[in-house]
Parts: sequence; C-alpha cells; structure tokens
Amino acid sequence: MQAIVKAKRAPGLTVTTVPKPTPAPGEVLIAVRHAGVCGTDLHIADWDAWAQGRLKPPLVVGHEFAGEIVAMGDAVAGLTTGQLVTAEGHIVCGHCLQCRTGNGHICKNTRIIGVDRDGAFAEYIVMPATNVLPLNGIPTQVGAVMDPMGNAFHTVLTAEIPGSTVLVVGCGPIGCFAVGIARAAGAAKVIASDVNATRLALARRMGAHVTVNAATDDVVRAVLDETGGEGADVVCEMSGVPSALHQAFAAVRLGGRVQLLGLPKGEVAIDFANEIIFKGITVYGVIGRRMYDTWHQMRRYLTAGLLDPTPVITHRFPLNKIDEALAAIRSGDAGKIILEIA
Amino acid sequence: MQAIVKAKRAPGLTVTTVPKPTPAPGEVLIAVRHAGVCGTDLHIADWDAWAQGRLKPPLVVGHEFAGEIVAMGDAVAGLTTGQLVTAEGHIVCGHCLQCRTGNGHICKNTRIIGVDRDGAFAEYIVMPATNVLPLNGIPTQVGAVMDPMGNAFHTVLTAEIPGSTVLVVGCGPIGCFAVGIARAAGAAKVIASDVNATRLALARRMGAHVTVNAATDDVVRAVLDETGGEGADVVCEMSGVPSALHQAFAAVRLGGRVQLLGLPKGEVAIDFANEIIFKGITVYGVIGRRMYDTWHQMRRYLTAGLLDPTPVITHRFPLNKIDEALAAIRSGDAGKIILEIA
Amino acid sequence: MQAIVKAKRAPGLTVTTVPKPTPAPGEVLIAVRHAGVCGTDLHIADWDAWAQGRLKPPLVVGHEFAGEIVAMGDAVAGLTTGQLVTAEGHIVCGHCLQCRTGNGHICKNTRIIGVDRDGAFAEYIVMPATNVLPLNGIPTQVGAVMDPMGNAFHTVLTAEIPGSTVLVVGCGPIGCFAVGIARAAGAAKVIASDVNATRLALARRMGAHVTVNAATDDVVRAVLDETGGEGADVVCEMSGVPSALHQAFAAVRLGGRVQLLGLPKGEVAIDFANEIIFKGITVYGVIGRRMYDTWHQMRRYLTAGLLDPTPVITHRFPLNKIDEALAAIRSGDAGKIILEIA
Amino acid sequence: MQAIVKAKRAPGLTVTTVPKPTPAPGEVLIAVRHAGVCGTDLHIADWDAWAQGRLKPPLVVGHEFAGEIVAMGDAVAGLTTGQLVTAEGHIVCGHCLQCRTGNGHICKNTRIIGVDRDGAFAEYIVMPATNVLPLNGIPTQVGAVMDPMGNAFHTVLTAEIPGSTVLVVGCGPIGCFAVGIARAAGAAKVIASDVNATRLALARRMGAHVTVNAATDDVVRAVLDETGGEGADVVCEMSGVPSALHQAFAAVRLGGRVQLLGLPKGEVAIDFANEIIFKGITVYGVIGRRMYDTWHQMRRYLTAGLLDPTPVITHRFPLNKIDEALAAIRSGDAGKIILEIA
Repeated sequence: MQAIVKAKRAPGLTVTTVPKPTPAPGEVLIAVRHAGVCGTDLHIADWDAWAQGRLKPPLVVGHEFAGEIVAMGDAVAGLTTGQLVTAEGHIVCGHCLQCRTGNGHICKNTRIIGVDRDGAFAEYIVMPATNVLPLNGIPTQVGAVMDPMGNAFHTVLTAEIPGSTVLVVGCGPIGCFAVGIARAAGAAKVIASDVNATRLALARRMGAHVTVNAATDDVVRAVLDETGGEGADVVCEMSGVPSALHQAFAAVRLGGRVQLLGLPKGEVAIDFANEIIFKGITVYGVIGRRMYDTWHQMRRYLTAGLLDPTPVITHRFPLNKIDEALAAIRSGDAGKIILEIA
Repeated sequence: MQAIVKAKRAPGLTVTTVPKPTPAPGEVLIAVRHAGVCGTDLHIADWDAWAQGRLKPPLVVGHEFAGEIVAMGDAVAGLTTGQLVTAEGHIVCGHCLQCRTGNGHICKNTRIIGVDRDGAFAEYIVMPATNVLPLNGIPTQVGAVMDPMGNAFHTVLTAEIPGSTVLVVGCGPIGCFAVGIARAAGAAKVIASDVNATRLALARRMGAHVTVNAATDDVVRAVLDETGGEGADVVCEMSGVPSALHQAFAAVRLGGRVQLLGLPKGEVAIDFANEIIFKGITVYGVIGRRMYDTWHQMRRYLTAGLLDPTPVITHRFPLNKIDEALAAIRSGDAGKIILEIA
Repeated sequence: MQAIVKAKRAPGLTVTTVPKPTPAPGEVLIAVRHAGVCGTDLHIADWDAWAQGRLKPPLVVGHEFAGEIVAMGDAVAGLTTGQLVTAEGHIVCGHCLQCRTGNGHICKNTRIIGVDRDGAFAEYIVMPATNVLPLNGIPTQVGAVMDPMGNAFHTVLTAEIPGSTVLVVGCGPIGCFAVGIARAAGAAKVIASDVNATRLALARRMGAHVTVNAATDDVVRAVLDETGGEGADVVCEMSGVPSALHQAFAAVRLGGRVQLLGLPKGEVAIDFANEIIFKGITVYGVIGRRMYDTWHQMRRYLTAGLLDPTPVITHRFPLNKIDEALAAIRSGDAGKIILEIA
Repeated sequence: MQAIVKAKRAPGLTVTTVPKPTPAPGEVLIAVRHAGVCGTDLHIADWDAWAQGRLKPPLVVGHEFAGEIVAMGDAVAGLTTGQLVTAEGHIVCGHCLQCRTGNGHICKNTRIIGVDRDGAFAEYIVMPATNVLPLNGIPTQVGAVMDPMGNAFHTVLTAEIPGSTVLVVGCGPIGCFAVGIARAAGAAKVIASDVNATRLALARRMGAHVTVNAATDDVVRAVLDETGGEGADVVCEMSGVPSALHQAFAAVRLGGRVQLLGLPKGEVAIDFANEIIFKGITVYGVIGRRMYDTWHQMRRYLTAGLLDPTPVITHRFPLNKIDEALAAIRSGDAGKIILEIA
C-alpha cells in the first residue's frame, strides 16, 4: 500500500510503498479515507530534538484519521466491517493505575500511532478495537480531525462553560475548535486572542464574540473591559507562548480556571503568589482526550449539529503532496489541513 | 399605595390601599413595575390547606417582581437609587449552618415575601439589600419572572448539560424555561413531555427538539427511541405528577441524573431497587435558587441573549385584574402571567 | 475439582466434582483459597423468584473470593503466576456507553460469576485478567470479602466524609464495613442503627461512636440529638427496610446526601416533596464497585492498616459445610462468613 | 486597654495603651484571651516592602485570636455575651461577585484585621458578627490558632484525601497542621519534608508516616520509593521555596493534585510542559479559609477530637513579650507561638 514514511534518522518524509498490515486478535483493519496533518508531523519531518529522541524509523507517520473498517481480527465486539470510524491514536496499557481509574489519557505506557508505531498516513492502518469510534454519520473528513478537536473538547468541557466568559488564547486549529465548543456550550461571551489576523478571522467565524490581536492590543485590558473588570471565568491557553501564559493568569478572574494545552518550550518564570495563589485559581494540564468520555461527548456535539468544524479545515491535499501540506502549516495562516487518501 | 392583599383567613384576594413601607437599615424601597403570578398565589387565593397552615393575614401577596430602587435605608452598599432591579424572594437568616456554608437556598429559617411577610403585588416593596440584583439592562417584565426562571436554572445547570440528552417532564412555565436553558447550554437533544398541546407548542418554541404528548404517547418509549435505547442523561421532573415521576426514573439512562422540582401531593410508591439503585443514578431535590450563583448565571444568560424567555410570558394584566390572572392559570393553557404595575 | 454447584432448577446446593477450567486468552486460572458467602448465595440456594428468573443450572456458585494465580492464558499483561489476588465478580462488556465512560459498574451487559457463569465456590476459577487485583500482602481471607467491602467503600467514599456526621442504617456485614470506612476517613461522628443487638455490638467494635437499636429507640430523634438538631450530613442506607428508608430521609440534614445500597422488596411510598425536594438533598443509588477506583482505594486502606475488617468475619467453614454457612446467615446474627477452600 | 501597636512607619512594634473599642451595629466586642503570632506580624514588625506598601500606622496588629464576647452591637443574631469565640480575620464586602457566589475568601475588597484595621493583639477587639465562630468547647488557646489551622484545612480538604498518599512540603506550623489533618482524613500515607530536623520531628508527632530532610535527602526519590514509583496523589506545598515547588511537581503522580499555599518571593521558572501539562495535574491556589465551610469543618474536627493541634503550639508569651515571640519565630525552630492575654 502507499504510505508516508519516516524512512531514516534525518529530515524529510518519503511517500513510498509498504506492506499492507493485518489485524491481530482484538484489532481491526481500517481503510483510511481522510487524515489530519498536525504540528507533530512537522516536528517529525524536520527531525527536531524531540523527534530524534522518540522515533525509531522506519515508520509510517500520521495519527489523525478516519476511514472504513475492512477487516476484523478475532475477539472484536461491537464493531463491524463497513463501518466508518475514527480512532483515538493513544494506545494505552490498560493495567496501570491511571488506566484502571478512568485516566487512561495519562497512561505512562502510552504508545502513539505515527510516533511509536505505524500511523495513519497510509491506505490502511490496524488499530485496537478499543480505540475505535464509529462515526454515526459524521463525514470522514470531519472524523479525520476529531483527534485535535478532542483536545479542544477536553480543554473546554472540563471547565464550567454555561453562562461563563471564556478567553481562548491562541487561535490555531485547536483554539478555533475551542471557540466553537465554548459557544455551543452556552458561554455568555467568548473572547479569542492571537497575533495573526487570518486566525482571528477564523475564530470569529467559529463564533468568538470578541477577538483581540495580541500583536497590537492589550489582551488583558480587553478582557477586563469586556467583563466589567472581573476577568474571564475560564481561560484556555492554547498557544504555549510565554507572554500568553502571563496573559492567561492576568485575565482570569479571582477563583477562575486556567486550562493549559499549549506547550511552552523550556521554562517560563511566573510569580506564583500573584499569578496563581492570591487569585485562588485552579490550573489544569490538558493532555490528549479523556478515554472515552471526550469522544462520546464530541460525537454527540457533531451528530447534533452543535458545532460545525468545517471552517477550520482550510486545506486539502492528496497523500503524495505531504510536503505542500507541511509548507501550509509552516506559513502560519493555515487552519486544519487534511490529506484525502481514498 | 395600591396592593393585592390576603385580607382574612378565607378564600379570595383583595385589591385595596395599604401604607407605603419604609426601608430599615440594610433595606431598599423598590417601586414595583412588573410582577409575576405563580401557582403559589393561586393556593393563597384559594386558601388551601397549605395556605391555612402557613399564612397570617392580612398580608400583601406576590413574590416575583422587578422595579426601580427609589429609596435606600442606612448601611446599604453596592446599590443606588434609580437602579432597575429584581430580587430573591427568600429572605434567609444568614447564620444557620446552611447559610454559612453556601446553601442559603435551604435555610431552615427562610421567610418568603408574599407568604411570610408583605410581598410584591403592590406599588412598593422593601427588600433586604442582600436579596436585590440589578437588572443590568434586562427589561423589568423579564426581571419579574427571574424567580421562577431561577428555579429552572437551578434545576438544569446543576446537571452536566453540554452534549447531553435532556428530558423535561412537564411544560409549565418553569419547564419551558428549562427547555430554553438546556438548549442554550448545549444539550445535544432536548425532549419535552406534557399532556397539554398548548404547552408542548410553547416548549417547541423554546427549543425542544422533540415533544411528546404524555396523554396519548409513551414518553419512556419515545425517549429510548430518541437515544438509541440508552435513555436521557438528565431528566428534569417539573410536573409533580406521580406517573411522570415513574417516567423520569424509567427514561433516565444508567448512571444518569434526575432533578426533582415538581412537588407531588402526598406519597408516591416507587420501586427503589429498580428505579434508582440498580440504575446507579443520582437524584437531586431542587428548592429555590442558589444564593446567589443562580442569579448571576441567569443574569449573564439574559444579558448575553442566550435565552429569550419572552415567549413564555403569555398574559399581562393590570394589578386590579388579579382574578382574571388567576383564572388564566386555572385554565391550564397559560405560560407565565405578569401584572403590569407601573 | 471440588465445587458447590446449583445442579438443577430446585432448592438446594450440591457439593460435587466438576472439571477444572482452563484459562482462555486474556484470562487467568486462580486456585481459590477463601471465598465469602453472601445473601445472594442464599437466594440461589433457596431458589427464590429472582434466582428462578436469572440462573441457568448447572452452575458453580459463589462470587466473593481470593486465591493464587496458577496459570495464565495468552495475552495477559501485568499479572504473574504465584500472585495472591482477589477479583471483581462483575464481568462487563467494555464497549457500552457506561463501560466507555468510566461507569463499568452499571454496564448493562454485566455477567456475574456464580450467577451468570461459573463462580468461586470451587478449587479453581478462571477470571478475565482485567477483573483481577493483586492483594499486595492483604491476607486471602480478607481478600475474599473485598467484593462486599467494596460495596461499602463505594457507598461511603462517594460522599464527603472528613468532618461529617455519618448515619449507617443497617449493620449487616456491609453496614459494619461502612462504619469502619467512615471512621477511617475522618467522620466526626458515626451513628449506626439496627434492630439486632449483636450487629450493633459489631458496629461499635468497628468504630461507631453511637449505636441505636431501631427496635426500641427512635433513630431519627437520636440522630437529631447527636447533631444539635441538624441531622446527619451523610446517611448510608444499607438495610432495604421501608421504615429505615423513611428514617434515612428524616435523619439527613438539609442539603445532605443519602446513599442507597439496601434493596427494598417491591415499592415503598415516600413523600417526595417533604422527604427529598424541600430538603434539597442528593440521593445516590449504589450498585457494585467502581471499576476499578473502588478496588484501588480499598487496597490502599487495607495495606495502610486504616481499616481492620477481620472482626466482621464471624464464621469460617470448609467448602463441604455450605449448608451450615447458609444456616448461620439465616440466623441473622452472623457477620461475614467465609469458606476455607485451600 | 493594653495593645501591641504599629505606631509609625518604621521597624518595631510598641506595647502601649489605646482606647477600648465599641461595637457598631452588626459587630461584637470580644475580650481577647489568646492570640497567635504569625509570620505576617514579623513582616509588619520588620517593616518590609510589603508592610510599607500596605499598612497605615498607627494600628493595633495581630489577626489570630480567641476570646469572650463581652458586648454586642445592635442587630446581631445568633451570638450571645459570654460565648467563647474565634473569628475569621478577613472582613469581606459581601457584595462582589466572589462574595455573592460562595467565594468570599477571594473577595477583592478584603480588609484584614491587624493589617488594614485594628487587630487582635489587645485586650479587646470589635469584629463583625458574621466573622465570629463560637468555640463550642474548644479551648481559647486552640481557638487562637484556628486562622492558620484553617489555611491547612482549606489546603488539605479541597483535595481528595481518604486512601491517598499525601506529601506535605514544608513543616512550619501550617504544614504540621496539614499533616495531622491528612492523617485524620484517612490518608493512606503522609510524607512530610523540610530542611529543619526540629520541624520534621514535630511533623512526625503530628502523624507523618515518613519524613524526609530535604537538606540531605532527595525528596522526590523518597516519594517515588514510598509509592511504588507512582508519586503522591496530593501534594501540599507549604514552603514557598522555589526548589520545593519543583519537588512538588516532580513528586505528584500523573493526574494528581498540587495545592499551593506557600508564597514564593518573586518569580520561579518552571517547565509547564513537563511539570504540569504532560502530567495532567490540577494545581490550586489556596488563599485564606473558605467562608465559612472551612471553619465549620475545622470546628467539627476539633470538637470530635480528630486532631490534637496542641503539639504545634511550642511557645507562649505574655502580651508585653512580643519581641521575644518574634525572636522565636526568627529562630526557625518554633512551631506556633501564642500570646496569653487574659
């Protein structure tokens, strides 16, 4: 089958032919229709320090996808051939403390498809049945971005949203999804900030009541003005930018909640007393998607039409145009990019 | 001033003239503009067993209202003359365990305006400043129904709504408010049931995806059909009808939540093992409004335009037409009825 | 191997010889050392209406046990031969909504060992590896009663216990465990009620500050007296007796929590308005044990020495004395009874 | 009356005579019996930058105390002359969003006794009745330290403690209280760390299962060893030391909770990705005591005998020996120090 492969320990990705996999007991074989391209794939292509430390080429890359079940291994219940599905790309051990107590998203033995084992930028992928979610009518191009959209659901819906003012810091694809999710969950006001006008326009399209260009305007001032001086009830930090982190703590109201998804590089110095403790706030580190609460919640949102994520999908490429896809991410103006595989 | 008074221990209400009250320290004087008429007022007019046991006439009745602050007692902070306001009608003691631990809504020393002390069907009312909420632009006719709307907010938003299927059992005014609140909070599906077609039409107008006429159709069957056999995540029981209570328990999914607001008369026999325990559900008794979380949440919904409650207000009468107002409630077809006082 | 079998559709249990089972993939074979006898086993022996409707003889009975892993099927991770273990007796499907969202304890496809498939009153049992919990030094005679003790943990620790007054209604084995768990979790006062003096003595031994004989004394009055008139913060209803259910609702404080574990037979008539709604309480139906949060919490309690459950174990019998074991349960004075199998 | 006064804008405290205050409406006059000396009082005596920015001398200092109500202003309910009481020293506005929604502990208009208005190092103090808590038999020397003990209750009991492993970082008086509270609430294991052997001995006396001298031993290594490599479920950071903050994040398990009470001076650089986000943890900033949940919970603990805080009280001085009291704090070996006033 055709696949995008990290062939060796060096920059670049290769479109090539690899053997079609076979499902083991408890696994299903999925014919991939659409796959999402993620910043992680860029790190892998660029062969940065993280990628060098983690990946063991050769390996099929890609971890966001949707497709059709075309074969089933033994001992699979609750799925059938012909179903259109997506899947959680974190494969967890099932027997550690976290897995056993409803926190599989932080399993210490997690293996990620496209990173630790063969991934989804291919005509076929095998997945443990446990990780698979039938799409129930959601189109595969939307299914292909449910992994990052799930990060946004996890970020937004582990805070209390109905009636709240929500600040989304950073309007990349996940931030834009977060805007739409917060709107659908009854946020009284959604404020979004970014330094990129294209992304802010996308955030407005996804439902932001107010957008603030952090390159030119004072985000904290804007939030205080919009909230009668209180600050935001919930801040979703999706950028990982150090200055944005300070804005998140400054813009949240006393007793509010800061959800941290963006990953700062290296250390950031903060004033714990004034930015966290005296404010009596709660800070939550968001990693992955809750298994599988987040997925069920997300599927309901999508099948109920509460959220239309398609404006966030700004580019589509065939499998062999992966370099163009990565270039679009590098441009900084792209929303979500998907590969059309079948 | 003109007022509607329960003059003596017998059926009926009297429109008459009473002295205009004066605010004590910590109180404000409010010129009432609009007031809501409630089933409780009907019980008082009819002088039923409950009213006979509780009221000590003579007394101005009415507990739902909004108006303008026209005078302030000493030691009032945070309010000003000229503000348009509504108020929580439960006056609580402030020093019992419940009041001291954030549960003033179940203060055992609660005194209710229009029941235990003079109420709001009058040109003026004095209220403790603590109970008063500025309307921040919400019209007084909407402010006048924020007390019962607050019951609906308390009922709906103490459950987890975003992405959930919500069944509202009973489409009186509070049930109809609940439908709108659940929609605004991102319920994936809102199902409403009642035996009255007019009320069901109102529920649809407030956003119910599905309505079921319990007089002719099987509510539980309908909920199971609409949820792939799972049942509703959240059931709001707003009717107090014994058969509806059984429907609530039968229609909620395993592990779901039943919010009880409707008050059954007398005892209802239920099968605790099969209706509650084996289902692993949580049941919550809703009384009043959380002080003052519910009010702040509600004000945000209204000022953000998340909920338009005006379709629920179906009738308006002047103060001296209270008998016509009560007759409209008795008809069973009315939504919320308000008195236009000034 | 020797086993206690429900041989045919009629009263009685048979001690006989059956084939030793073999573990399938994902299963382990456990040599049973101790097993707990439960009221459910009595229902099965007596062949009551429930048993007639559910069981399909012939079948090895028994669902509470601990023993040693002696063989492993394929594809088992995280367990080893020679480990002493206990196991959750509810075998759940893993793919229903409840299983997928952290609520496996209410999986609608649950199959119970000793009820729906061969059980633990035998020299050997095969169990899915998922259900198995290493004892980490807990003796197997304690491990054998972790299933019912887990019901008590689930009941007590899903309420907020530190600093609370807790009423335990019904001092059978699970009630007595609940007393000890509440004490260890920092309940300020634990009150226990029952109609049986032997059981009340056992509750005192497990740490009850106050015991009330419901046959002779007014339980509600006693709770009010012990709480300055407030009522208990948390009530654990472990009896299933209708009058006790009313006591639970009357004895809980405004805004408190009632945990329902005891199973009333048939319907019980309650006054929802006064017993639940006006009190603003929360009622939770307890079924099984949370998978596997409850088990991990319980294992920590036991290995930390926070709870000594051994006083609750009042009788021990060999496998072939099952009739004597059942007679001891029938007497009403027994705590927990265990079979010594190896 | 005799009082300890910050007389002017310079280092030092003065024992002198000031007028006895009179209770206004809603206030009570309390004859102080015992008062606690706090690090804050040291900052005030030393006239550090914080004190210079906040205090407006002359002012009676001290904010931790207990005594007897000797006179009542008008309009006070629920208290009587002769009652022994303690009081919350944070006087809040009652009308901001935080006060109105159960979060008075983070009222932005908070005025602290002994900092913003006259305090408790005096023969008499007037307090708003709202802030006063009857001791119900708790000795006044214990009542005098319920303010800092309340910080410890707030820190520990807003996490889930029964069955958990709890790491207390920093064994000053509040840390030692935290150790005792965690033990009483059923922590399976309490580990305490500090650099001072005297404080560690006090932590052991308060119930720590394990103590670690951070000056000589590796705290994180010790916690991992004690928890089978998992880390602590809950970490209470009571030191404000930057290195300890890193230990807190390193020692908490995946998905655990870090409660921050200690106040670092200035900024601390942390690696948000690895210390918070990838671990999926929750961080909570603890300020003051929840009003008044924390006080009621604490009073129950103390009256039930769940916690004996007296070992933490290591020094007692008369009012005029405030300099000796401050010197004892400076020594670093003291637990809690109280002034014996009457």
